[in-house]
Amino acid sequence: MKRILNKETPQYPDQEVRVAGWVNTRRDHGKIVFIDLRDRTGLLQVVCPPDIVKDVKEEYVLEIEGLIKKRPAHTINKDMVTGEVELQARQVKVLAKAASLPFDCMEKDLNLNLPTLLNHRPLTIRNPEVKNIFKVSESIVESFRKTLRSLDFTEFQAPNIVPVVAEGGADVFHIDYYKYDAYLSQSPQVYKQIMLSAFERVFTVAHVYRAEPSVTTRHMAEFTSLDAEMAFIDSWQDLMDTCELIIRNMFADLKPLKIGVPELGREVPRIKMREAQKIILERTGRNNLKEPDLSPEDEQEICSWAREKYGSDLIFITHYPTLKRPFYTFADPLEPDYTLSFDLLCRGLEIVTGGQRINEYDKLVKNIKKWGNKTDSFCFYLQAFKYGMPPEGGFAFGLERITKQVLNLKNIREASPFPRDMERIDNKLKKGPSTRLRARKK
Amino acid sequence: MKRILNKETPQYPDQEVRVAGWVNTRRDHGKIVFIDLRDRTGLLQVVCPPDIVKDVKEEYVLEIEGLIKKRPAHTINKDMVTGEVELQARQVKVLAKAASLPFDCMEKDLNLNLPTLLNHRPLTIRNPEVKNIFKVSESIVESFRKTLRSLDFTEFQAPNIVPVVAEGGADVFHIDYYKYDAYLSQSPQVYKQIMLSAFERVFTVAHVYRAEPSVTTRHMAEFTSLDAEMAFIDSWQDLMDTCELIIRNMFADLKPLKIGVPELGREVPRIKMREAQKIILERTGRNNLKEPDLSPEDEQEICSWAREKYGSDLIFITHYPTLKRPFYTFADPLEPDYTLSFDLLCRGLEIVTGGQRINEYDKLVKNIKKWGNKTDSFCFYLQAFKYGMPPEGGFAFGLERITKQVLNLKNIREASPFPRDMERIDNKLKKGPSTRLRARKK
Repeated sequence: MKRILNKETPQYPDQEVRVAGWVNTRRDHGKIVFIDLRDRTGLLQVVCPPDIVKDVKEEYVLEIEGLIKKRPAHTINKDMVTGEVELQARQVKVLAKAASLPFDCMEKDLNLNLPTLLNHRPLTIRNPEVKNIFKVSESIVESFRKTLRSLDFTEFQAPNIVPVVAEGGADVFHIDYYKYDAYLSQSPQVYKQIMLSAFERVFTVAHVYRAEPSVTTRHMAEFTSLDAEMAFIDSWQDLMDTCELIIRNMFADLKPLKIGVPELGREVPRIKMREAQKIILERTGRNNLKEPDLSPEDEQEICSWAREKYGSDLIFITHYPTLKRPFYTFADPLEPDYTLSFDLLCRGLEIVTGGQRINEYDKLVKNIKKWGNKTDSFCFYLQAFKYGMPPEGGFAFGLERITKQVLNLKNIREASPFPRDMERIDNKLKKGPSTRLRARKK
Repeated sequence: MKRILNKETPQYPDQEVRVAGWVNTRRDHGKIVFIDLRDRTGLLQVVCPPDIVKDVKEEYVLEIEGLIKKRPAHTINKDMVTGEVELQARQVKVLAKAASLPFDCMEKDLNLNLPTLLNHRPLTIRNPEVKNIFKVSESIVESFRKTLRSLDFTEFQAPNIVPVVAEGGADVFHIDYYKYDAYLSQSPQVYKQIMLSAFERVFTVAHVYRAEPSVTTRHMAEFTSLDAEMAFIDSWQDLMDTCELIIRNMFADLKPLKIGVPELGREVPRIKMREAQKIILERTGRNNLKEPDLSPEDEQEICSWAREKYGSDLIFITHYPTLKRPFYTFADPLEPDYTLSFDLLCRGLEIVTGGQRINEYDKLVKNIKKWGNKTDSFCFYLQAFKYGMPPEGGFAFGLERITKQVLNLKNIREASPFPRDMERIDNKLKKGPSTRLRARKK
């Protein structure tokens, strides 16, 4: 008999079936035992004679054969996909045993502190709400790819081992690369741009790294960057248009998961950073007009304003100061101290960053020097521009940040199945002898 | 006027259009200049009065406005998608200039040595045949995901920074991780298995790393692993069935790219490693019966045999010796010295490896010790098994290897846009002062 999934059982009334899954709960009622069996599609109520489930406990993995019966009307459970039926077990096979649980991890509201949640990730990931976070995350990635494919973007694999550091100088992880120095990539920027000259429009789902020596609710050492780059733009506004389309589709594609996704309004407002600072001054009295960036508090405030004025949970902030952006950022010809760059904020947090890039070889060389770097270090990258690069730009979506904002999670670590930070890789880190191991028996 | 793509031009006879792209070739014929303009969809012949393209050279990026005209019958070029038309240029705008090319890189048969090809990757990637490699690679990845989604697998993001080394002891890259030791992942194995207990079926497109101190045509330091894992298998044969379906779909999805994909025959043969060794002995006289693995030469030979006997360019080799596989590999209950594991060879090269895993907690703990490792180092991973793990297994496809074999490339480095090895990250590596850089001007 072929295994069927729990959600399929209502199609088999009065028929023998085989199901398999984990024991979600066990309730003993004297002469019968009720087991809620959990598989990837949901729960199924199984009615068992006690003798065939004698030692069975929560999280045991079972294979059960039996008869599907319609439940009497008054016992139908509308909250379960299989609520109209139950399985009368005839035979139970234990596929795997389970130790006693350290806490009840299948309750809807798990309510654990973050370290406990993460220390027990292999267990807590089974919780339906936790699991749902990663269905949301999966949907966001796939929607990103779907929109870009529909716009004729080509997907490629960007490398994570890089020879130089293009984005930020300090916060980078060093790798012992044979006899050489190498680093973990902070962004696939360089490689996106190189690929442009063959494909015009490219994207990549990349892992990127920040060795930031601080612990916040918004940063991790490794995160997923949904990166795209497009050539032959007529204006840098094309980039924000594409971002807006991507995010509209992302939120629409999340509808089946029944989440209160952020509102975009009729269109997402676009304002300059300096305008945002003035609005914040008016609204709060906080004078940050001379700051080169918005603080987390400012990002919250300007999002409230966008929500009130435009009915949008999102807002584009544009024209960040030239000297605070990477060397390849395109300065606004009308006011060269500011760049044709943008951040997209959602519910108070930056989830996308992007902008037009310098595509002219001479300008780029000049800027590399001006930013204090050696052009030698960039000779590979510079070839893409030396031999003709169209006007172009791009952007990067932070996967875990979007997931966090969509689900209103408190900490970005909840949005990563295996978050890494200063103090954690899987478990909390401990100083000690190297954990390098032997894999094969000699 | 909105830019149209080259391939769209035949739809606009006698109409004014705007196109944009790179100068693929320039041919001067006295009073007119012919330019083949290249965009992502192909070439378009543009007829220009000399005065509007005076300084234009190869790889210049142009935006051209003009009139689309049907070509006279005798000048139609059937090899070009736009061969029935040409553009009579009225106005040409130079979007970017290009330096003189170091070699002709748009010829169909590029015929460069590998170092030159890779040193000039930002340029050589524009070559149509090189570009096509990465369209093949893109298609393989997307097809892998498509098949697995259709089988209800969940996609997740596996981390690349790992605390311990599960696969091979020596060939691993060390990362300076804050005050701690960490490594680049050799496989998402541990994380795939953990995710199983929530999702039953998972996959990930992961980057994985090997610090192998050798240079071969089959290995790179960073490569792309298409990894899947499935629970509730009835038999380990389910895993090979799924692999075969994936690869059949992959090759079918490559059809539009007009490549002579490998043949699978009616079904891909499955034989034990020891049987393969006997067949090789019979065919060649090479006695490798006592070897624990097939040599590259043996892999070639057994593929020739499969081709002759089954009309298949692929073959599954099963039952590798237990002590030569990682600790989590499931031993065959009928002959415990051999595992329920397999490699899939294609045209003489391993492109997939997989097998059933130990799902029983006690057995796994025993094996971790037997393989000379500390269970402490695996306490995070072991939780997944402690609390009930169904029978399961999985496999990993090497993206660049499949691409190489499908296209009959000589070296795997050709199948990666940015290959990394002992001597190369973008450019050939040189000893010298650290290349760590400042990104923002102070």
